[in-house]
Amino acid sequence: MSDMSQPREPRPAISQADYQRLSEFRYLIRRFLEFSQVQAEDAGLTPRQHQALLAIKGFPGGGPVTVGDLAERLRIR
Amino acid sequence: MSDMSQPREPRPAISQADYQRLSEFRYLIRRFLEFSQVQAEDAGLTPRQHQALLAIKGFPGGGPVTVGDLAERLRIR
Repeated sequence: MSDMSQPREPRPAISQADYQRLSEFRYLIRRFLEFSQVQAEDAGLTPRQHQALLAIKGFPGGGPVTVGDLAERLRIR
Repeated sequence: MSDMSQPREPRPAISQADYQRLSEFRYLIRRFLEFSQVQAEDAGLTPRQHQALLAIKGFPGGGPVTVGDLAERLRIR
């Protein structure tokens, strides 16, 4: 993930097609997050509860999950 | 997007690998959204301003964008 936290210089040119793809990607992320939130709420969970359960159930390696692991996976600072 | 708003019954079985992939996907979305937010703020924009600009710049078809279009793309209710 170092590419995401430390962008290289100089930045590459961004085409109009890139903007459209990125815009569409963000729109679809919004739709997905909304969908997931509604489904969680229908199941009686807050979105945060749902994500905590998913992070534990789907933790890489399947081992015991510490509070620190969970905080990182949920990106809780 | 009707698949996302109207899930079919019965639901397919979800494997442990599916949970891990979904958990990873959500983690990477969180990292990406954080990255984007920090970059926007470094450029003097709020995340909402950044997303509004991107939605306009990358609007499909490239035509004039109405307030209603923008609200839909940003999923503002």
